[in-house]
Amino acid sequence: MYRLYDYLPSGNGYKARLVLKHLQIPYELVPVDIKAGESRTPEFLDKNPNGRIPVLEVPGKGFVAESHAIIAFLAEGSDLFPAEAFDRARMWQWMCFEQYHIEPNIGTVRFWLASLGKTRAELGDKLIEKKKSGYAALDLLEHELRERTYLAGERYSLADIAVFAYTHIAHEGGFDLAPYPRVRAWCDRVCSQPRWRPISEA
Amino acid sequence: MYRLYDYLPSGNGYKARLVLKHLQIPYELVPVDIKAGESRTPEFLDKNPNGRIPVLEVPGKGFVAESHAIIAFLAEGSDLFPAEAFDRARMWQWMCFEQYHIEPNIGTVRFWLASLGKTRAELGDKLIEKKKSGYAALDLLEHELRERTYLAGERYSLADIAVFAYTHIAHEGGFDLAPYPRVRAWCDRVCSQPRWRPISEA
Repeated sequence: MYRLYDYLPSGNGYKARLVLKHLQIPYELVPVDIKAGESRTPEFLDKNPNGRIPVLEVPGKGFVAESHAIIAFLAEGSDLFPAEAFDRARMWQWMCFEQYHIEPNIGTVRFWLASLGKTRAELGDKLIEKKKSGYAALDLLEHELRERTYLAGERYSLADIAVFAYTHIAHEGGFDLAPYPRVRAWCDRVCSQPRWRPISEA
Repeated sequence: MYRLYDYLPSGNGYKARLVLKHLQIPYELVPVDIKAGESRTPEFLDKNPNGRIPVLEVPGKGFVAESHAIIAFLAEGSDLFPAEAFDRARMWQWMCFEQYHIEPNIGTVRFWLASLGKTRAELGDKLIEKKKSGYAALDLLEHELRERTYLAGERYSLADIAVFAYTHIAHEGGFDLAPYPRVRAWCDRVCSQPRWRPISEA
């Protein structure tokens, strides 16, 4: 059985959990308290030298780190993986976009404010810069959703799961989704998928 | 024929060019002068609303942005794509690592210093932070290469191309590769691949 080393409030871990649940793949969750330093112990660094969750342990094979590598591994050949090559390319495009523009901005701001309890004053210009980049990513997402129901092809895929993870909790980092009606409607479509579960559920 | 919208000094564009050349796929290169704002024109934004190169035009289908999405699309099923699922997962892991830890640090510092001609004094703390993160990425790469010849499985793959692109020109951003003998030996192995070509070649 797969073992997922994870921290439940993590949007990156949530991507893996959403895929495991959607595909009804049994797994054992091993909680890692990243705030208590549990992802930086020698034992954990043997699993992922980069000291980050989530990590998937594949029996008889080893460990896979990086949320998008984990979900690609789990979902290849499933209904979450577009059958057509060009749609798969667009899926990868959105996953890369998420990793570069959404997670490091919307995800990081949420982590600073909601998990680490830092204040706006303390963060200063760093916060302003990340908020600006986060809103630019939301602008682009809103723009792209004007002509599509899901992000890659016309079916729910890993692209939706990857982008949804931090977008739907953007408000926890102080982002206002009110000016993004298409993003909100698309989030609702993700939440209505079979076996969808809220973040922070093992 | 594929059309690649690209800026020759770009390491991200280079990833796509290395794959196209390795796989002997004919393509037309359309130069985009990003320093002259050519990736922010309305015409270019129709191709990639994110205003970045490289972009691959796929005849009869449309446009693919994001270097790793482009190279995945081009290389699926080829010798650059590991045949075994776990090796593919490790390939994705390295591509994600590159996008999160190498490109935004080593790639960005090179862009600031070598392309935009900014000075160290001007960049201040931002530069110090990115140098620190870039060296941490190199430390991890050196560590991982202690027990492998290539990054995913035991064959040259997209993982090597993706990580190589900015690593081998790290010195242009002022990074010193002298303390990284395994990284340098691995760069030499990449350069010795069939049809390998230097960056900035169309």
